[in-house]
Amino acid sequence: MIIVPEREIADLMTREAAFDAVEQVFAAMASRDAYNFPVVREAIGHTDALYGFKGGFDRAGMTLGLKAGGYWPNNLDRHGIINHQSTVFLFDPDTGKASAMVGGNLLTALRTAAASSVSIKHLARPDAKVIGMIGAGHQATFQLRAALEQRAFEKVIGWNYHPEMLPNIEKVAAEAGLPFEAVSLEGMRAADVIISITSAFAPSLMADHVAPGTHLACMGTDTKGKQETEAALLTRATVFTDEIAQSISIGEAQHAIADGTLTAEQITEIGAVINGTHPGRASDQEITLFDGTGVGLQDLAVASAVVKLAVDKGIAIEVDF
Amino acid sequence: MIIVPEREIADLMTREAAFDAVEQVFAAMASRDAYNFPVVREAIGHTDALYGFKGGFDRAGMTLGLKAGGYWPNNLDRHGIINHQSTVFLFDPDTGKASAMVGGNLLTALRTAAASSVSIKHLARPDAKVIGMIGAGHQATFQLRAALEQRAFEKVIGWNYHPEMLPNIEKVAAEAGLPFEAVSLEGMRAADVIISITSAFAPSLMADHVAPGTHLACMGTDTKGKQETEAALLTRATVFTDEIAQSISIGEAQHAIADGTLTAEQITEIGAVINGTHPGRASDQEITLFDGTGVGLQDLAVASAVVKLAVDKGIAIEVDF
Repeated sequence: MIIVPEREIADLMTREAAFDAVEQVFAAMASRDAYNFPVVREAIGHTDALYGFKGGFDRAGMTLGLKAGGYWPNNLDRHGIINHQSTVFLFDPDTGKASAMVGGNLLTALRTAAASSVSIKHLARPDAKVIGMIGAGHQATFQLRAALEQRAFEKVIGWNYHPEMLPNIEKVAAEAGLPFEAVSLEGMRAADVIISITSAFAPSLMADHVAPGTHLACMGTDTKGKQETEAALLTRATVFTDEIAQSISIGEAQHAIADGTLTAEQITEIGAVINGTHPGRASDQEITLFDGTGVGLQDLAVASAVVKLAVDKGIAIEVDF
Repeated sequence: MIIVPEREIADLMTREAAFDAVEQVFAAMASRDAYNFPVVREAIGHTDALYGFKGGFDRAGMTLGLKAGGYWPNNLDRHGIINHQSTVFLFDPDTGKASAMVGGNLLTALRTAAASSVSIKHLARPDAKVIGMIGAGHQATFQLRAALEQRAFEKVIGWNYHPEMLPNIEKVAAEAGLPFEAVSLEGMRAADVIISITSAFAPSLMADHVAPGTHLACMGTDTKGKQETEAALLTRATVFTDEIAQSISIGEAQHAIADGTLTAEQITEIGAVINGTHPGRASDQEITLFDGTGVGLQDLAVASAVVKLAVDKGIAIEVDF
């Protein structure tokens, strides 16, 4: 039994390893070598916590297990720890024995960032120069840092409902030596790639805020009722996702599905593009939209990668369990 | 983070501690202080394994978490380990941080045995003398050993589809200094308490095999399609269960529910009897039937108990997670 505590993850895990793990598992999902189990998500009626399990099995990567945890909204105030708390548990698919326990907090941030990066690699125009950020919270910094590695971006633009948070992403741009400009939502027409990463329940980004040829990664909507972009954008765009079942029920596509302007059959798994069974972007004028909903298999994939790194570097805790 | 490996459970956990933990959590379920989450159960398409999660939260006991694992039918042949493999993970309900990992194999056997014992304590006639066993496999020995502590039994009788397995339970009777007799199913009319613990998909015990005044604990049926007793027995008996939702869908009651001879409203949670909000057995002639389906909260309750014992005895493994 291998244990990798949360505190070790930052030094062990790289964006590259997270990217590779997430790209591989999206490919395995599309080829039906990997699937996610039904998600359990419960408001437990104690300290307003949301708790649950996201599990899955990847036969290609031989990864089985779950991420357990959730959202404890009073953690920071009451206990000085972050509100999102999760742990990944891996099992040996050959025997059912627990094989690893891995801190899941930073991994969740990295796998979410990796997902939009995978979509940029496979769907953004090769000559993309300007990246736009909708949202400037903690997770936005992860998304931007990972995205900047996928194209030769020359400028970062950003919008946030609370503009005073924009320095968060300006700092990431500066780290990469890129200029940053705060823009209005209309200003997003200058972007070749847009990442939205908010917790909004009403759309910010309207269809006419997005120029032809843009690739848009909608990463914030993971719950019924949340929405970052106008539903009309999804009918104008070619829509891709990590998992269609989640996209249409809790993802950004839920609203266009509900109003009948989009059907599940019009949505393509990003894994199909990775596998080459879908051509991906068809023209420089096409708007591509990736609906990133977040699946348990992503968590298992990055946890499995970090376990290998921890063992290789000799810092895994081994317990005779 | 506390770790209690499987190998430590046998020396740590007692039948008494398992009984108390299960009785308390059944009570908490009936008073709505505790509830089970939706069960995830997946045939993963690898080595014929069934894998899943049973989670729950007990606000009274402040126990949150899940049992993960399942059934690997080739384990014994291929790896020399038991086919049922499970691990219990506990979380701090105040913060969402993982707090304990506990081997779940022996605990599962003990909590299942405790459940029928709790039903015997609260529903069998006080003067019960003869206990009958339907089933004589490994788990039957746990059920019988625990049951013998609940009444001043004077004799054990048993039936099994494969009679050559009956020595398993004869041995438990002998340990307790009690005579054992192999009987036909008709011979079960001599029993005051009957425990059925088989994996049958067709009923063995018919309504006329059960005498008035008997308490019957049906412990084997935990899946759609399984059945140990004739459905007519459930309409003749007063039916109790651990959880009504499971009783009517995957428990022994599923068949009487399906043929319309029993309604969910006629089934009582055993916790209501423990709490005194239901009187339990009404007469010496009444047949009481406990439909034990097995819930995640039982696993969490016994795991939580064993963590306390392990800490008290100084044999818990502590990991700075």
